[in-house]
Amino acid sequence: MEQSFLAYLRGRCRSLPQVDVGIGDDAAVFAPPPGDLVVCTDQIIDGVDFRSEELDESDDGLANVGYKSVAINLSDLAAMGARPHSILVTLSLPRDDATRIAGDVYEGILEIASEFQLAIAGGDISTYDGPLAISVTAVGSVPPGSAWRRGGAEEGDAIFVTGAFGGSLLGRHLRPRPRLDVAAALRKVCPVHAAIDVSDGLSLDLDRMLAASRLGAELDVDAIPIHSDAETMASRSERSAWEHAWSDGEDFELIFAVAEENADRVAGLDLDVPITRIGTVVGRTGLWQRTASKVRRLSPQGYEHKSGSGDQRVTDETGTDQG
Amino acid sequence: MEQSFLAYLRGRCRSLPQVDVGIGDDAAVFAPPPGDLVVCTDQIIDGVDFRSEELDESDDGLANVGYKSVAINLSDLAAMGARPHSILVTLSLPRDDATRIAGDVYEGILEIASEFQLAIAGGDISTYDGPLAISVTAVGSVPPGSAWRRGGAEEGDAIFVTGAFGGSLLGRHLRPRPRLDVAAALRKVCPVHAAIDVSDGLSLDLDRMLAASRLGAELDVDAIPIHSDAETMASRSERSAWEHAWSDGEDFELIFAVAEENADRVAGLDLDVPITRIGTVVGRTGLWQRTASKVRRLSPQGYEHKSGSGDQRVTDETGTDQG
Repeated sequence: MEQSFLAYLRGRCRSLPQVDVGIGDDAAVFAPPPGDLVVCTDQIIDGVDFRSEELDESDDGLANVGYKSVAINLSDLAAMGARPHSILVTLSLPRDDATRIAGDVYEGILEIASEFQLAIAGGDISTYDGPLAISVTAVGSVPPGSAWRRGGAEEGDAIFVTGAFGGSLLGRHLRPRPRLDVAAALRKVCPVHAAIDVSDGLSLDLDRMLAASRLGAELDVDAIPIHSDAETMASRSERSAWEHAWSDGEDFELIFAVAEENADRVAGLDLDVPITRIGTVVGRTGLWQRTASKVRRLSPQGYEHKSGSGDQRVTDETGTDQG
Repeated sequence: MEQSFLAYLRGRCRSLPQVDVGIGDDAAVFAPPPGDLVVCTDQIIDGVDFRSEELDESDDGLANVGYKSVAINLSDLAAMGARPHSILVTLSLPRDDATRIAGDVYEGILEIASEFQLAIAGGDISTYDGPLAISVTAVGSVPPGSAWRRGGAEEGDAIFVTGAFGGSLLGRHLRPRPRLDVAAALRKVCPVHAAIDVSDGLSLDLDRMLAASRLGAELDVDAIPIHSDAETMASRSERSAWEHAWSDGEDFELIFAVAEENADRVAGLDLDVPITRIGTVVGRTGLWQRTASKVRRLSPQGYEHKSGSGDQRVTDETGTDQG
C-alpha cells in the first residue's frame, strides 16, 4: 500500500505549507523555524485513548481520531508557548481494511494541518495484527530561551485557565481545540512563568505544574469553570459537575501562571475562549482552599493515561484539613 | 508506570547530551543544530519487523530491538548526509510485563544513543492489547541546502555502495551499523549527488533512487559485494548468494552517486567499512547489465516492508533482454 498511498498523500498535501524535502525521501529537510525548537510526540491507540467501536460510523469517526492525534500534540506545543511548524505521522493499521482506515484518519489529519497551516514533513505506515495506533511528532518554535516550562511558577503568581472543564468524554475529547491562539496572544501581553495543558485532569495537571515549581496553590474552587458536558455527566453519575471538572481530564485547556501585576491584563484579553483566574501560587506545596475560617487541603485527582495497568483513576494525596 | 519509569530514564540519560528542556515537560526544547534540519520517523513492530519469540532471551534480544529502532532512523539520516542530534522514542507495550520490556528495550536505545551521542529529547509510553511497537523520530542537520536527496543523480555519475549485502535476516538486521561515519567522511571529499539507504533490497532501493532522479544505471553485477551471510543463506535456500545480495534487504548500507571525476577519491577513502563501485548512472531508466555483446535489463527485487498485506517480495519489472 505504502507507495501508492504516499503518492495520494503528496497530492493532498499540496495546499499545505511545504518543507524543502518531504514525503518520499529518506527524511524531511527544512530550515528550522527561528528561535528554539520545541518538539513533542504523543500517540493515541484504539482501546486505550478512544474506542473505534463507539465512533459514529455515519459521521467522521476515524477522521476525528486523526484530528485528535494531531490536536493533542499541538496542545503540548501551546503549553510551551510555541508556534507550530510541522508534523510527522506514524500509522499502525489493523490489516483488515488498512487503506480505508488510513484514508479516513488522514481526512482529520489534513483538516487540522490545514487549520493550523502545518507542513506534513513525513511519517511511516505499517500494517500489523493490532489496533489502530497513531503516533504524531510535532515541531514548533519559541523565541530563544522563552519556552514556558512547568517549573517556572513563582510565589504570588496568578493562576489562570482557558475554557471550561469536565465531561469531555461525551465527545469533546475527540475534537480538542489546541490553545495556540491563546498562547500567541499571551506572548504579546506578558511573560508566562509556567504552563501545562490538561490531559489527565485539571487538578492533577495543576498539581504537576506546581510540583515542578516546588510550590503550591490556593484555589478559588467556585471559580473553576465547569463545562456543560460536566453537568450532563453529573446527571448520569454519582459525582457532581464540579468533581467532573476537577478530575475528568482530556480537556486540553491550558493552565498558566503569570505575575500578579499582570493578572488584570491577562483577565482583560478578548479571545475566542474565556480565560479565568482560579487561584494564586503559594509557598506551601499542594492544592489548598482558603475559606473565611480555615485552609483545606484539596486532593488532586485524574487519570493517568499510560499507567502499566491501563488508564486508572488516581488520587495523589488524601484530603486533610488544616486550620 | 510512566512517572516512575520516566524518573528512572532521566537518571540513565544523564551521561548523554542534554536538551534545554527534556523528558518530563510537555515538549522538548533546544536550540536547533546549525544548518537545515533533517527529521525522520520509522517504527518497528513485533511480528512485522522482528519476531520476539525468535529473539535469544538469554542474550540481549529486546535490547537489540531497541538498538535497531534507533539505528534504522540514523541510517535514514546517514542517507541524507546528515549529522544526528537527538531522538524521541514512543513505546507501545503489551500489558503483560510492560515494565520489564520497556527496560530491556531501553538498554539498547541507551547503548546506541551513547554510541552516537544522541540526546533523548522525549517520547511517549502506552500499554495496550497489542504487540511491542517502537516508533522513533530522529533529528539531525546538514549544512544549508546540502541534504543528499534521492533525485539528484546525474548521467555519468559513479554509483557506490558501503559494506556488503544479503542474508541480514540471520541476525545482522537487528544490529545495523548506520553509516554516519561514511556520510561525514564523504562530505569532506566531494559533493554527493544522490543517496539512499538499503532497507528493502539493494536493487529495489537503487531503482528507487534512480527513478527519483529519472535516470537508470548500468551495473557491474560481479562487483556487488556479497556478505558471508548471503552465502550461508544460499546454502539453505534455492537462491544464489548473489540473488540474496540483490534483493534481501535490511542491510542498512548506503547507495550513493558522485561525479565520475570524484570516483577515485571516493574509492580511495580509508574507512572502517569497504566502499565499492557497482556501476554508472545512465540516461535510460531501469537497471542494466552491459556485457561484451549486449545490454540486459535487470529486475529490481526486494521486500516492501509496509504493504497492505504485510511484507511481501516484489519485482518491479520483469527481466527483458535488449541487444
